[in-house]
Amino acid sequence: MHRFFLPEDRAIQDTVAISGSLAHRLHNVLRLGAGDRIVVLDNSGWEYEVEYQAVHQDLAEGTVIGKALSAGEPACKITLYQALLKGSSFEVVLQKCTEIGVSSFVPVVCDRCVAVRPGSNRVDRWRKVILEAAQQSRRGKLALLHPAAQFQKACESAGGASVLLWEGEESRGFKSVLRELLASGPPDEVNIFVGPEGGFTSEEVDIARGCGIAVASMGHRILRAQTAGLVAAAIAFYELGEIGGGVADLSQ
Amino acid sequence: MHRFFLPEDRAIQDTVAISGSLAHRLHNVLRLGAGDRIVVLDNSGWEYEVEYQAVHQDLAEGTVIGKALSAGEPACKITLYQALLKGSSFEVVLQKCTEIGVSSFVPVVCDRCVAVRPGSNRVDRWRKVILEAAQQSRRGKLALLHPAAQFQKACESAGGASVLLWEGEESRGFKSVLRELLASGPPDEVNIFVGPEGGFTSEEVDIARGCGIAVASMGHRILRAQTAGLVAAAIAFYELGEIGGGVADLSQ
Repeated sequence: MHRFFLPEDRAIQDTVAISGSLAHRLHNVLRLGAGDRIVVLDNSGWEYEVEYQAVHQDLAEGTVIGKALSAGEPACKITLYQALLKGSSFEVVLQKCTEIGVSSFVPVVCDRCVAVRPGSNRVDRWRKVILEAAQQSRRGKLALLHPAAQFQKACESAGGASVLLWEGEESRGFKSVLRELLASGPPDEVNIFVGPEGGFTSEEVDIARGCGIAVASMGHRILRAQTAGLVAAAIAFYELGEIGGGVADLSQ
Repeated sequence: MHRFFLPEDRAIQDTVAISGSLAHRLHNVLRLGAGDRIVVLDNSGWEYEVEYQAVHQDLAEGTVIGKALSAGEPACKITLYQALLKGSSFEVVLQKCTEIGVSSFVPVVCDRCVAVRPGSNRVDRWRKVILEAAQQSRRGKLALLHPAAQFQKACESAGGASVLLWEGEESRGFKSVLRELLASGPPDEVNIFVGPEGGFTSEEVDIARGCGIAVASMGHRILRAQTAGLVAAAIAFYELGEIGGGVADLSQ
């Protein structure tokens, strides 16, 4: 069944009226009509099965016939502090990390960033990427996109279990850092810092350490800036039992 | 230091002469000259540090000053049986999975594939994607790209530990399948099957089961066809100790 987040956050009651471009899409692209059902999400973590009485190109009106807590939201919130990247690389990160379950993104301005802070057009496009990835992957909430932050401010603001990936780290691997972070039970939040194409400077790594952020290597192969956060977040979700469990697999 | 695979497989002795487009790149793009060093790979798993005596735009001549086994090759070979994908999605899979360490790729023709078998131009581009990703991520060997195969033939040819990812599987998760595959020690080879955009058909899943391939869910969130293989391979490498270990971390 098709899934759609409502364009603005609003509480859903017994009926759902959809207008604007989403109504146009339901009518003209998906060609839905009376009796068809979709899942509507209000970004609260609940999802609503809605049966439409009428779908016009400017208005679709339906009735809520069921409501359930979305199964697609991880209990642990991972925030990806991702350095700004060139071209469309940041969009790739937003798309794939939203799919696997990342809760929020902080674009970070680092010493070696070539990419500049995003303008409002770019931010709008980024939000659209998150929306589409959330719908496709059956998320119950949209990942948050925070404003861009300078590296040091980002380090200072990150509370809780935090790890920075650095190819220059030779003594500690991501696995041992992760297991230490999880040793006293699953944390509510995990923060993962990933650098730009040219990597973090050693001064930045020192700043992070000074803020209590663990520094870890991903291993012998050097992952692209665009790939590292996805791989690290996927592994963290795996260790947390949030990826790779059977949907009905109680042994997980 | 820049790393380059030689254009064709040839054994490296005491000196290395490079011609053609790679010589052009060393001379005109990277502007290397006498005394500069690069790492040259012959796709044997060894890497050679080479100091150049002369770099011209059609010929670069250097001397091998060191030789080491590449650290970038995982002990376990993962083969990704990836259904053909639309647009540039297959390239994304090749690029990112080469980075994390996948050893070979089999493009698979499935019932719901929209994409057609690649022509020779597309295969050439795919090989270039693999080459660049291998150089960037410090692989010691190029991932193999096999010819496209029909789904059933691919299933029949896959020997050893094999798992197919299917969003319709409700009882078994990837984690429990993976741990079972690894229970008697790290296997030499793991095969991961990933479907096209529209997913595997239930008939295909039955064929796979009939060939002894385990079927597993990745969990509640539905990963794109383009993302699933990367996430599964990254997690397998993590369980195998091939990702997330510190470079000098003996506790891994």
